[in-house]
Amino acid sequence: MTTDDSRTDSTTDSPAPSPSAPAGLAATVAAHWTATEARDWAALAATLAEDMVYELPQTRERIRGKEAFLRFYREYPGDWHVRVDRLVADGDQVATWVHARVGTEEMHAVTFFTGDAQGRITAISDFWPEPYEPPAGREHLTERY
Amino acid sequence: MTTDDSRTDSTTDSPAPSPSAPAGLAATVAAHWTATEARDWAALAATLAEDMVYELPQTRERIRGKEAFLRFYREYPGDWHVRVDRLVADGDQVATWVHARVGTEEMHAVTFFTGDAQGRITAISDFWPEPYEPPAGREHLTERY
Repeated sequence: MTTDDSRTDSTTDSPAPSPSAPAGLAATVAAHWTATEARDWAALAATLAEDMVYELPQTRERIRGKEAFLRFYREYPGDWHVRVDRLVADGDQVATWVHARVGTEEMHAVTFFTGDAQGRITAISDFWPEPYEPPAGREHLTERY
Repeated sequence: MTTDDSRTDSTTDSPAPSPSAPAGLAATVAAHWTATEARDWAALAATLAEDMVYELPQTRERIRGKEAFLRFYREYPGDWHVRVDRLVADGDQVATWVHARVGTEEMHAVTFFTGDAQGRITAISDFWPEPYEPPAGREHLTERY
């Protein structure tokens, strides 16, 4: 796992989002995660287009609109924490790899963002891959870490 | 299972993408998935640095080196097919969202690639998020699709 990307380090002390250009989606997404970790719902709202859509492909759930999305996050149970380990930005698309923690439970989240011309988030697709035991038969090729 | 193991020959005489610049990682990764779907092991090998590392964070398995990685893919069971739905490229990093199919089973794969100065892949982190049932209590915010 790669955590040495200095580009993601700035997300921990990133200022309030003021996205203003298409190229700004990387900064918007960094601010998005910073605001999420801080439960700063006003700052989080500022990263989102009004009619944004949030999807969870694993459950096939969809949330339409900024207000419903913010409520989903506000109501999400548990003392959760998120930290951006990787952020890959490409014009109006960004992918992030986030380390999430709820108590002693640690998880990965992988998220694809799409932005508009103002650098605000219009679509989020969020994956929460769970740990599993490797199938037998490939121990000759793998090590565990 | 369709294994085209007649092609498990030398990986050195590949017809190959010849990525030559850091910006070429997007093309390398596209070629990587095309070669994977085609079981074109020589072309796949050409996308990889010799000492590349492959990791599956969900199982905490790690495979070291191009040859072991190629063998892992060659030996992978099932009549699997992959199609790239999204590719996000950012210098020496690329993230992809791949639709995978094995028979009637459909899956998502999310993969982070790191490249070297020659545009070859040095590290792959591969996630295979599985479907799950949504927890109760958020039906007021979500629709299913």
